[in-house]
Amino acid sequence: MSTSKPPIRLGLFLLADGHHVAAWRRPGRRHNPATDLGHYLEIARQAEAGFLDFLFVADFLGVRTTDTAAISHSARTLGLEPLTLLSALASATKHIGLIATASTTYNEPFHVARKFASLDLISEGRAGWNLVTSQNDPEAWNFGHERHAAHDSRYDRASEFADVVLGLWNSWQPDAIVDDAENGVFLNPEGLSVLGHKGHHFSVRGPLDIAASPQGRPIVVQAGSSDTGVALAVRTADIVFTAQPSADSAKAFYAKVKSRAAEAGRDPGSLLIMPGVAPVIGQSRSHAQEIKDELDALVHPAVGHHLLYNATGGMDLSAYPPDSLLPDALPETNGSKSRQQVLLEVARRDKLTIRQLYLMLAGARGHRYVIGTAQDVADELEHMHQDQQADGFNIMPLTLPEGLGDFVGQVVPELQRRKLVRSAYEGRTLRENLGLRPAGS
Amino acid sequence: MSTSKPPIRLGLFLLADGHHVAAWRRPGRRHNPATDLGHYLEIARQAEAGFLDFLFVADFLGVRTTDTAAISHSARTLGLEPLTLLSALASATKHIGLIATASTTYNEPFHVARKFASLDLISEGRAGWNLVTSQNDPEAWNFGHERHAAHDSRYDRASEFADVVLGLWNSWQPDAIVDDAENGVFLNPEGLSVLGHKGHHFSVRGPLDIAASPQGRPIVVQAGSSDTGVALAVRTADIVFTAQPSADSAKAFYAKVKSRAAEAGRDPGSLLIMPGVAPVIGQSRSHAQEIKDELDALVHPAVGHHLLYNATGGMDLSAYPPDSLLPDALPETNGSKSRQQVLLEVARRDKLTIRQLYLMLAGARGHRYVIGTAQDVADELEHMHQDQQADGFNIMPLTLPEGLGDFVGQVVPELQRRKLVRSAYEGRTLRENLGLRPAGS
Repeated sequence: MSTSKPPIRLGLFLLADGHHVAAWRRPGRRHNPATDLGHYLEIARQAEAGFLDFLFVADFLGVRTTDTAAISHSARTLGLEPLTLLSALASATKHIGLIATASTTYNEPFHVARKFASLDLISEGRAGWNLVTSQNDPEAWNFGHERHAAHDSRYDRASEFADVVLGLWNSWQPDAIVDDAENGVFLNPEGLSVLGHKGHHFSVRGPLDIAASPQGRPIVVQAGSSDTGVALAVRTADIVFTAQPSADSAKAFYAKVKSRAAEAGRDPGSLLIMPGVAPVIGQSRSHAQEIKDELDALVHPAVGHHLLYNATGGMDLSAYPPDSLLPDALPETNGSKSRQQVLLEVARRDKLTIRQLYLMLAGARGHRYVIGTAQDVADELEHMHQDQQADGFNIMPLTLPEGLGDFVGQVVPELQRRKLVRSAYEGRTLRENLGLRPAGS
Repeated sequence: MSTSKPPIRLGLFLLADGHHVAAWRRPGRRHNPATDLGHYLEIARQAEAGFLDFLFVADFLGVRTTDTAAISHSARTLGLEPLTLLSALASATKHIGLIATASTTYNEPFHVARKFASLDLISEGRAGWNLVTSQNDPEAWNFGHERHAAHDSRYDRASEFADVVLGLWNSWQPDAIVDDAENGVFLNPEGLSVLGHKGHHFSVRGPLDIAASPQGRPIVVQAGSSDTGVALAVRTADIVFTAQPSADSAKAFYAKVKSRAAEAGRDPGSLLIMPGVAPVIGQSRSHAQEIKDELDALVHPAVGHHLLYNATGGMDLSAYPPDSLLPDALPETNGSKSRQQVLLEVARRDKLTIRQLYLMLAGARGHRYVIGTAQDVADELEHMHQDQQADGFNIMPLTLPEGLGDFVGQVVPELQRRKLVRSAYEGRTLRENLGLRPAGS
């Protein structure tokens, strides 16, 4: 591996049938894999065979919508809970990192600190926490709230939440466990730090009843791209996961986060920026495009309309045929307008039909598509890495396990030949494999 | 297996080094097994080889005490979190039930419903939830409270909490998943029940984003022995776990719970009563007693004093030598007096030293000891079962894995010869193996 530049970091963004919303409709796919542990075990082993850094699991606390048509036509309504899933995978894998999402808005920091610390020990130092502040009202309704909290108030809580979790993970120095059976001394209380946190949102005494793992503490991932989100990431995260639809936006975001890290007195290399990428790999470029087109053709209009409804902050276009252009007079919405405007501008400019518009959201969901031969995909990832758009990528195959099989079987070997990714796990822990220094150093 | 009477149900109460407080000091024991997944995997496989019904894991949300002397001398301060541990064991076992404890006082019902439902799917129908209301102030301190809530208020919350969890587990009828890829119909919304709970403690809309497992819903275990606790168990539980120190108390408790179940219109056979039992198995009765005595001799006085302190609701006797009788003038306490009085009466009556008194608490912790040869232990379990003291037992070996090895290797075969326990798993799920009817029937 080249010593001049760190290798490309690779995660797998794990999502039942794969990232294309119609992946579950492809021919020959396994029956209802979303709740089948065997399916996830197969993917985890495949990812480990390709020496990927980690599995990454998103989360949503409930069912995303009250729209029964959208529920009926989606294979994503039901699944498994991330921490239990990754704990089950921990005992069946040896090297791969296990990153689960947990919300700071609808959790208690003591539970989050404790469950991730436990997964970290169970996996011998391979756990990570993706901190999110949750998304929308249907989550709030399951926790006694009428509305999802506003952005600033969520991030205020998230910031204090992260402090408490990191503080609890620091409860026990590694040498606190003496385990001297002969003299009956199990712990050295000098290795104990009692947190005693009393803040605006939380009052948590500690200590945690879980010891530090071989990697010190779980890896922290953050996906907030707002200024507040970036500030929190600079202060607390090891990895930033981000959706960057173009090279320009990726480069600008990369530069911003790295310079904010430097301004905060932090080594910019200690904060890895990993955008999502959806690779589509074919024997030729046209074959790759056909793979995507065939999936696009399977998107049910009810699902497509629902994707648009979500992306436009609540615009209901279901009365219009999918192959018509956008109507001149658009329905009013109460939701956020910024993402809506971006989409509608593109639609008007490029004269997109409603179907063409929702298909933009059906696969990579705002992340980058990379479509072509294995060589093309490797070229593009190498370029994005060299061009300071990314330290690595959270890979989002359109289908699982097939899309991951293509990536691990064809793109990874090409990247290995170029010495851009590892050919064997070099470290014991996720932190070591990511090239990050021990926690607290 | 006899058709006249159901078989003896057997669980393993899983606790790192074993149930004797000094088990970690025995010669030849594995280094710090409490956080070592390999240790738990070995025990789980051993329990499954003995065809036990389930593993049972207790929980405490934090470190039990601020007494650093007690912390220093105890191997129980640090461990793993139950749901992550049992999820890791789920993928490495096939038949054994997996029952984890979760507190209704310091959790949200949506999280509890969701994580247990997920474990239930991951294990293909082997999960169980042991509902507790938590124990003391050090838990409260980790969740923003100054004091642990009072008994009645905890049970008021627990009762509504259980309703919400059971309601959420009923979100999806088994036939709701259509998974018709050709027509793009994944779910039948007629199989969906939206909870819409609005109560005194909780407001939870639902539905849950996790489908029903092959056993319908996780098994529910309850350990409250107060009238309120029994009423909740009769209404919601499949198993009652209980500490019954004598045959008389066990028989009275069994009769009470079964008659309360019948009064509530419930089949008494659908509520299994499983007291804890600590078997000590030797080649002879005196050998078994030696095994216990050797462990008792390893109890550090600081730990013994702490056991007494806890059991008496806060009486500090650490100024008195372990081999002295109780002082005439006892220190005052603020804690509960009932258990204190029982202990002190026994101590005065039998002229016990402080050491003898705390050793009563060092192993079975208020549960029954059964000490003798494998034949003796089998005789006693058979008698307790025939005598309507129990439907089965939560086995609490003093040492793990050794004590479980003795039980599975010697007592289980003897019970099998008598056709009192199974010789192969007859069902696919925990519910089937426990002889319980499908949930909701």
